[in-house]
Amino acid sequence: MLQFQLLATDPTSHARRGRLTLNHGVVETPIFMPVGTYGTVKGVTPRSLREMGAQIILGNTFHLWMRPGLDVIRAFGGLHGFERWERPILTDSGGFQVWSLGAMRKITEEGVRFASPVNGDKLFLSPEVSMQIQTVLNSDIVMQLDECTPYWQGDKASGHVTTEAEARASMELSLRWARRSKAEFERLGNPNALFGIVQGGMFEHLREASLEALVAMDFHGYAIGGVSVGEPKEEMRRIMAHTPHRLPAHKPRYLMGVGTPEDLVEGVACGVDMFDCVMPTRNARNGHLFTRYGDVKIRNARYKDDPLPIDPDCTCYACAGDAGVSWNDGGREGFSRAYLHHLDRCGEMLGPMLATIHNLHYYLNLMREVRAALEAGTFAAFRQRFAAERSRGV
Amino acid sequence: MLQFQLLATDPTSHARRGRLTLNHGVVETPIFMPVGTYGTVKGVTPRSLREMGAQIILGNTFHLWMRPGLDVIRAFGGLHGFERWERPILTDSGGFQVWSLGAMRKITEEGVRFASPVNGDKLFLSPEVSMQIQTVLNSDIVMQLDECTPYWQGDKASGHVTTEAEARASMELSLRWARRSKAEFERLGNPNALFGIVQGGMFEHLREASLEALVAMDFHGYAIGGVSVGEPKEEMRRIMAHTPHRLPAHKPRYLMGVGTPEDLVEGVACGVDMFDCVMPTRNARNGHLFTRYGDVKIRNARYKDDPLPIDPDCTCYACAGDAGVSWNDGGREGFSRAYLHHLDRCGEMLGPMLATIHNLHYYLNLMREVRAALEAGTFAAFRQRFAAERSRGV
Ligand SMILES: [Zn+2]
Ligand SMILES: [Zn+2]
Repeated sequence: MLQFQLLATDPTSHARRGRLTLNHGVVETPIFMPVGTYGTVKGVTPRSLREMGAQIILGNTFHLWMRPGLDVIRAFGGLHGFERWERPILTDSGGFQVWSLGAMRKITEEGVRFASPVNGDKLFLSPEVSMQIQTVLNSDIVMQLDECTPYWQGDKASGHVTTEAEARASMELSLRWARRSKAEFERLGNPNALFGIVQGGMFEHLREASLEALVAMDFHGYAIGGVSVGEPKEEMRRIMAHTPHRLPAHKPRYLMGVGTPEDLVEGVACGVDMFDCVMPTRNARNGHLFTRYGDVKIRNARYKDDPLPIDPDCTCYACAGDAGVSWNDGGREGFSRAYLHHLDRCGEMLGPMLATIHNLHYYLNLMREVRAALEAGTFAAFRQRFAAERSRGV
Repeated sequence: MLQFQLLATDPTSHARRGRLTLNHGVVETPIFMPVGTYGTVKGVTPRSLREMGAQIILGNTFHLWMRPGLDVIRAFGGLHGFERWERPILTDSGGFQVWSLGAMRKITEEGVRFASPVNGDKLFLSPEVSMQIQTVLNSDIVMQLDECTPYWQGDKASGHVTTEAEARASMELSLRWARRSKAEFERLGNPNALFGIVQGGMFEHLREASLEALVAMDFHGYAIGGVSVGEPKEEMRRIMAHTPHRLPAHKPRYLMGVGTPEDLVEGVACGVDMFDCVMPTRNARNGHLFTRYGDVKIRNARYKDDPLPIDPDCTCYACAGDAGVSWNDGGREGFSRAYLHHLDRCGEMLGPMLATIHNLHYYLNLMREVRAALEAGTFAAFRQRFAAERSRGV
């Protein structure tokens, strides 16, 4: 099931405040979804995720299909039971990962043939197979199989940017796969929700053609794919400004694989309801921490003896300890930048663990603030203050 | 300060139930102390440690001296503030790590000259320097600087087991360093507790000579060092059976670097009050998990689809989730062996995180059960049941 209520809209932009009801619970939008590739959001427990207010997380169909495999997940009644996460889960279609295999895969009308990167087995992914796998996973939101149109054909060194003809052919294949995905999803009696994915590369008219055809098929929600695929930031922003608000207002809109905190706030202004990105978790493991006043590179020697927590305004466990009172509100239970710098230098696991808690908390809290501003009708002011504060510097 | 109360003794062995009061709190003994080398017990948050009932943790003076260095820790008022652990801490003297540098260090009567493994700086560790560093760390229990007598002179391949003459010379040096440690500890006005360390290699008469001389110096507590240094298990057990109960009954006794769950229970029977070992944390990271009925090697393919938690009797977060109800008591919120097997196979951080929580919980809970048995006067039965259950197999 999927119900989507629009609770408020912003008069100064396309931003909206919504509520998504899925089989495993309610998701308040706009929302950021932490990425849990292999059935775990890297470096955090499900308990931490709940505590920081994660409402929905991602799983990667391709990776879970390879390891642990469907037999194991089926025995646990799906991904929720296996990974012990009782709130909603969205799974991708597996298409992006198969596409990333490069020379190891062959795409035809029927689907994608590829060799398993785990054991070399010859495997086949089609819209039907993707729907079958995602039905076993029992994710609350299922994504159609699409062909992710790349920005560069071959690698970047080729200098060959995808042409209009290439983007059109790819988008049209994705539409045919969308139809097959929907038919198989229905044939399987999957009780969850299915999203179509708008493709079309960097071409607005192709995006519009894709969108119209998908809307005519009537999905539960719509995603914008084929961004964050190697294109310059301005190109991503151009598509982000173009496509989301053209999607049906009464259905949720998901911008795939985006992005920085700035991208998220601007994405909301463009009418996006849902985001996912590995940035908060991956950057945490590299000592790159997000704060209200800009980013902290914890490896920098300037933090060697800094007694402040990562973000003096933050109430996460890393910044505010068990009490959850921020430094600026007088709390002194958080871990210092000096300590995190030390943990990083010593290669201690607690470093990425605390950094991941903080970065995810930052992203989830940013979305909480966005929702509050939309409810209060102050999103325009919020958007301005956010940009000013972020560029102030730590 | 240090106060030690004897609450109960076991008529069938040398086991005792005690209570240690230190500057940062009370420690119920017998106790296992998790090892926090660099100011962090690898893979767990201080919050997890508190929740699993850790009463006192270790820090390694040598490692903390190298990184982050004393200036940083001094700025935080000591190790407690730096690592955000408000309960008692014991620090070692740094001697064992310097000794482990092998060819890179030179031991004289005065102390040990060595090159910093971090930046090559020429450094000097003496009883006085060790006391000065541990005073900055402000650990609740300070260890004297000793020379850790090895079992093998040179490496094991040399075939040269430490002779009586070598063990005697080493033990006598440690005694002279004990005297200098105590004098410096007192000169510094360190408000915490100082332990002397019994050496003497595998020779009972040397152990007795060491013990008598240390007791005459009147330390707050006594440790048995020079075990777990490469000797066969029977040799360790022989010294463990010989030395602890000869120490003063009204002072705490600490067996350094020991050991397996079986070693701990037998150590308690020999009169030991305190243990530390990297085994639960290190083994966790290698997929080696301790349970009531023997050990689980989670990498074994037999666990691939096993729905049980690591230990169906365990109430830790890994085995019983947030509810803390064990599988055998009907709880179903824990993580399965299949999931942990999968995490290990994928190299996901959550694997060692959950395994570390479980293994430390197992060790701490084992000591809780030991204390309860001593209070109830049922230690002999406990000891027997423990051995039978552990050898049953998972
Ligand atoms: Zn934080
Ligand atoms: Zn457990």
